[in-house]
Amino acid sequence: MLNKKNSLFEAFKQTKYQMAGHGKRDIHILKEAFQAVDGEQESDIYGKGKIIEDFQDKMAAYLGKQRAVFFPSGTMAQQIALRIWCDKKGIRKVAYHPLCHLEIHEEDGLKELHHIETVLLADKTRVIELEDVITMEEEISCLLLELPQREIGGQLPDYETLEKISSYCRDKGIKLHLDGARLLEIVPYYNKTVVEICSLFDSVYISVYKGIGGIAGAILAGDQDFTEESKVWKRRHGGDLISLYPYIISADYFFDQRSQKMNQYYEDAKELAELFNSCHAISTLPMEPVSNMFHVHFHAPKEQMESVLIEIYETTGIGLTSYLRETTEEACSYEVSIGDQYAALPKEKVNHVFKLIDEKMRELN
Amino acid sequence: MLNKKNSLFEAFKQTKYQMAGHGKRDIHILKEAFQAVDGEQESDIYGKGKIIEDFQDKMAAYLGKQRAVFFPSGTMAQQIALRIWCDKKGIRKVAYHPLCHLEIHEEDGLKELHHIETVLLADKTRVIELEDVITMEEEISCLLLELPQREIGGQLPDYETLEKISSYCRDKGIKLHLDGARLLEIVPYYNKTVVEICSLFDSVYISVYKGIGGIAGAILAGDQDFTEESKVWKRRHGGDLISLYPYIISADYFFDQRSQKMNQYYEDAKELAELFNSCHAISTLPMEPVSNMFHVHFHAPKEQMESVLIEIYETTGIGLTSYLRETTEEACSYEVSIGDQYAALPKEKVNHVFKLIDEKMRELN
Repeated sequence: MLNKKNSLFEAFKQTKYQMAGHGKRDIHILKEAFQAVDGEQESDIYGKGKIIEDFQDKMAAYLGKQRAVFFPSGTMAQQIALRIWCDKKGIRKVAYHPLCHLEIHEEDGLKELHHIETVLLADKTRVIELEDVITMEEEISCLLLELPQREIGGQLPDYETLEKISSYCRDKGIKLHLDGARLLEIVPYYNKTVVEICSLFDSVYISVYKGIGGIAGAILAGDQDFTEESKVWKRRHGGDLISLYPYIISADYFFDQRSQKMNQYYEDAKELAELFNSCHAISTLPMEPVSNMFHVHFHAPKEQMESVLIEIYETTGIGLTSYLRETTEEACSYEVSIGDQYAALPKEKVNHVFKLIDEKMRELN
Repeated sequence: MLNKKNSLFEAFKQTKYQMAGHGKRDIHILKEAFQAVDGEQESDIYGKGKIIEDFQDKMAAYLGKQRAVFFPSGTMAQQIALRIWCDKKGIRKVAYHPLCHLEIHEEDGLKELHHIETVLLADKTRVIELEDVITMEEEISCLLLELPQREIGGQLPDYETLEKISSYCRDKGIKLHLDGARLLEIVPYYNKTVVEICSLFDSVYISVYKGIGGIAGAILAGDQDFTEESKVWKRRHGGDLISLYPYIISADYFFDQRSQKMNQYYEDAKELAELFNSCHAISTLPMEPVSNMFHVHFHAPKEQMESVLIEIYETTGIGLTSYLRETTEEACSYEVSIGDQYAALPKEKVNHVFKLIDEKMRELN
């Protein structure tokens, strides 16, 4: 198994083209972002200075919030956001989806460091709906909505649902926080402005290294009282680094380069999902993507599927994924996030890959 | 006052030479460190990958510890070290100096996030001695020693005292943690190897952007059980970034460049301190430095001293400091950390500066 896994990983690394993503996460990313930067520019110093302040102002304006703060990570930014809202209300309880990043990827930092209890809304197969919020019995300080809900392929509630949840929360004195790690990526589907979407939320987090493709880092935005308090917690967490500019300058550079390309990623994702869904024994979740991402489900055992993919990589030079996750004994899946690479792929090569996959899937099943 | 402060800051920025430090904290630092780096090198990914693992191994070997972990900040690394030792013993209490970084510079992260109580040993004028440790009444999990004790000019206990404290703590089941933000800088004075010094401690933190002069970041080292647990807490804190390589590569580059120069910085610090002490109404703390650092105390009011310094900067083109801290109405001080710049200064220019300062101080007093 381990060997197989490594084989797929290695075969993927050898491919000339990859269908998803912006490309390799290598040092070139930093080199490209810094190429045109004046070496005389002074570092930010513990959250102050032109580099960090300018980018924070730019992001605040972009998100339509009073202020924005640059954080080394979303993990840090979001725990802090929830902590501030809990302290404000005096209730250490928040609600979010069972597959929320804080619940499954952060070693329980929220609970271990902030002693915040969590209420899990909806279930692992669907997004949070208005009904889930209204019928919640516990009193909470904050509701976190992740848009799109990554772990279920990047699904979204209707925009109307968002508006109703927002309005309900405001009435009930519940703060609404947006886990917008992939916020830019959902703008085309909702067909709203970023500012409109953010106006439904009291606090907003966005990642600078997913769709934007920076090196690392996050933005947390909200009212000035909120962001000022977040800076205190940032220091407590050990995130108030003397210099964050390697992340800020790269975030700014790739934001300018990619923030306008989200519509293309979205259209490409829909096209690619359709190609998968046209194959035998393959389906995507969601069937029609609502952002640049979706999950691919192969209705074949993981080991068999790995062999199929390795053969396709070696034959075509095109890589689909470096890993497969076993979902059942008879099925496996992986995540697609469309970036710059898909549009650069020769279409006839893409079609050839899908012809091969379809044939192979028919042989297997 | 604000204006004056800004004037000194601005005048300092205009100087051609500066006596302390390695030079400006600008983007050049990153550009230099990355100049020779192969762009094809893959990023570290969430604490894994060659870049981070190689540097961690190198630092573990250098410090003589089983394992080392790269952290985005010392604030994060040290809180986590103390938390692990507290959890292990089941007592949420540690001891350190009243001017410990955790006590005065971290917005009480240790208390707010980890609910750890602190016992303050010694007082604000001197370092922790064996007697302070032996007579401590509270039961603690861990004692933190900061070497050198920065806020009092970078003072050190005798090496024999260190050995006795270490041996006492081992007997009593108290873990000993080294705040070695400036560990490399004290090696020449103790005339011991880094490994010898670290062997007295259960866990060791070093900074990569002080004497070493990297961009940001820290190393936390200890036994494997300890470092593995520290990685879990690193994730909880939001410090397990997808890519830490901008800090790691620069740390490695400047470590290779400067780790061998600590003896020179130490000798330069002694020489410079002597020059200050030879002036009227100026003294250094400590009188004879035991590392690359010391504090300069001017026995003159801050505002007057600012005018004196501005005039000297403008006359000589040499900057001493960008700020002064008022210690009493009649005195002020600043911190010196010797780096590459002192050795690059023409000696006759240095002597000229001190001749001028001495004259000015005599005029003032």
